[in-house]
Amino acid sequence: MTLSTALHALTAPLRARGDARPRKGEATRAAIVEAALALARRDGLEGLTIGVLAEQMRMSKSGVFAHFGSREDLQLAVMKEYAARFVDQVLRPAVRRPRGLPRLRALLENWLAWLARELEQGCLMISGASEYDDRPGPLRDAVVEIVQGWKRELLRAIEQARDEGHLRRDIDAGQLVFEIYGLMLALHHDARLLHSPDSVKHARAGLARLLDSVKSPRAAGPSPTRRVHKRPRAAKA
Amino acid sequence: MTLSTALHALTAPLRARGDARPRKGEATRAAIVEAALALARRDGLEGLTIGVLAEQMRMSKSGVFAHFGSREDLQLAVMKEYAARFVDQVLRPAVRRPRGLPRLRALLENWLAWLARELEQGCLMISGASEYDDRPGPLRDAVVEIVQGWKRELLRAIEQARDEGHLRRDIDAGQLVFEIYGLMLALHHDARLLHSPDSVKHARAGLARLLDSVKSPRAAGPSPTRRVHKRPRAAKA
Repeated sequence: MTLSTALHALTAPLRARGDARPRKGEATRAAIVEAALALARRDGLEGLTIGVLAEQMRMSKSGVFAHFGSREDLQLAVMKEYAARFVDQVLRPAVRRPRGLPRLRALLENWLAWLARELEQGCLMISGASEYDDRPGPLRDAVVEIVQGWKRELLRAIEQARDEGHLRRDIDAGQLVFEIYGLMLALHHDARLLHSPDSVKHARAGLARLLDSVKSPRAAGPSPTRRVHKRPRAAKA
Repeated sequence: MTLSTALHALTAPLRARGDARPRKGEATRAAIVEAALALARRDGLEGLTIGVLAEQMRMSKSGVFAHFGSREDLQLAVMKEYAARFVDQVLRPAVRRPRGLPRLRALLENWLAWLARELEQGCLMISGASEYDDRPGPLRDAVVEIVQGWKRELLRAIEQARDEGHLRRDIDAGQLVFEIYGLMLALHHDARLLHSPDSVKHARAGLARLLDSVKSPRAAGPSPTRRVHKRPRAAKA
């Protein structure tokens, strides 16, 4: 179970912290990040201010500054916390599935479920991409690192599925990552801007069609959790 | 040549204005909108302030206010100007093409070319969607109206291509619009955030694959401008 270097590096301090009993200062810091994450989801990372956060936490501004040297440090901590949760809820459960199509399908299903849960407030990885695409600096760098790390995970899962013989040998893995990402962006766009009730359904149908179009003839069958190469059983009526 | 009601209504005053010789006040107003459009592309519509704009135009703030009663009026004027240019450069040339696949392909090619030109500064229709998806108000309403109007145009072009027998009868036109939009969002995302040199190529390949997958067997052939139903000629070697 190898997570991509970028995603791993970004979230390592947070995950390591979870192993030990948190000290009081760390508990307060975690509570601040939690509240900041909720605010950033509502107003964007650029809408996050120490003032509003302090008011919401019933703390003084200097109390918040004691944990984060600057607004930018706080924004970075929020982005890292978001990435850590993404790794825990989307990536980690999927890499426990067998290599190949089962793992790839699990990655996509978990991501879809994550986005569907996030639609009310928006996904920081997607809204952050738009917020920082033309603002050079550490926050842009963090968003790029997270998005690239996640794309590398998708690419690796696709390449493994190809090497396992589940996907056709002639597929363009990078093209597939691009199109998968597009379906997820369209889901986020239509649900958030247009309040379209069909966006999850459309994204799921698009993913199914996309995977079907690149599936190796050996790996037939529509079930998302089908164990390929297993002894086939007679189908029930 | 019927443009969708929403896009048409939004851009009507601007187009009508173009027919008459502009008075001096209107020329100044147009120059302000032009400068504001450039600023909004750089900093987002929310980054647009009368102060910065006045400075750039070497006008007083009250001079700008004489043309736009409020910052919001100015932002709306910028959004409308953007939509008017989109209609002129993407929609209008395409609806001159024959109904069906030729018109649909022209819409997509023009849109792709528009986005490729806009990548340096970003597309207001896409960045505005992310900027306003959770900010209720007239600007969100304007973005929604423009995006929905454009989606209706795509839907109509797809339905016409189906009715002309160029696309299969069993296609889900709404699903196709969703997936096309996703490819364009992915192009914008990868080019702007990741500076990916392949984003236009990936989007074009995705569009080609998508259209091929829904093309009626009668409408074979990869040429984007192929006249379907025309007497076939022998293929050259």
